[in-house]
Amino acid sequence: MARPPVSVSPRTPLVEVAQKMLEHRIGSVLVVDREDRLVGIITQGDFCRHPGRMVPFSLFESANVLSNWLYPDQVERVYQAARNLRAQDIMQAPVVTVSPEASLGRVLALILKHDINRIPVVRRGKVVGIISRYDLLRVMQQEHAS
Amino acid sequence: MARPPVSVSPRTPLVEVAQKMLEHRIGSVLVVDREDRLVGIITQGDFCRHPGRMVPFSLFESANVLSNWLYPDQVERVYQAARNLRAQDIMQAPVVTVSPEASLGRVLALILKHDINRIPVVRRGKVVGIISRYDLLRVMQQEHAS
Repeated sequence: MARPPVSVSPRTPLVEVAQKMLEHRIGSVLVVDREDRLVGIITQGDFCRHPGRMVPFSLFESANVLSNWLYPDQVERVYQAARNLRAQDIMQAPVVTVSPEASLGRVLALILKHDINRIPVVRRGKVVGIISRYDLLRVMQQEHAS
Repeated sequence: MARPPVSVSPRTPLVEVAQKMLEHRIGSVLVVDREDRLVGIITQGDFCRHPGRMVPFSLFESANVLSNWLYPDQVERVYQAARNLRAQDIMQAPVVTVSPEASLGRVLALILKHDINRIPVVRRGKVVGIISRYDLLRVMQQEHAS
């Protein structure tokens, strides 16, 4: 379980969400309210999953690559759209979570059933950690090394 | 271990590689020579990792999304570039592989060390299967269910 997970507020503009994900090199961010309660999660795929609210994450990720293909006015249009849209417009909610007391079997079942890469660990609505597939494979490695 | 993994030849144009990945909904394809020996692997990230050979995978994945941002002549330029480039121009080689006799601990160690999602299982140069992180978590789930 890694902590603290990176989070944004529901009102954070998409362009800042994307910058945060790139800065921390992460595939998802948590969305928390003012009382620090988990209200949503955003993955890279969510950036282009919503009709009418589509700002492909790759346009931020590969800005230097895409400059081969995009004209400058288009890049500016993308950033403008991403300043107008906010985390709450594209986040997934409710979020699949586990309690700190959950068994490893329960964590695995949820990750496989929902085909997700990470699952937040929540106590009384607040995030206390996050478990990734990588973390689980590390545990498995320890089990198989001993 | 899943089989048969999807493969292309070193001379397959990038546009066909992308279409194959989208059609099978997979994050990587194997590159095999005429004798069916493994010579490389291509993941979505490899599409834009090479200076001067950059055709972001998302331009194929989100063609309908990107049509909001790209002019038709740009879309055509991207496809033209992807017809001129071939699998061998962007593939990763050599490939991290395991033998069919490898222990689970060995498989885990390689996947974690190289931070890869899948590892081909190779016997005498030929691919006989592929193991993903998902497959490993399924095994772990079985171990923790019993």
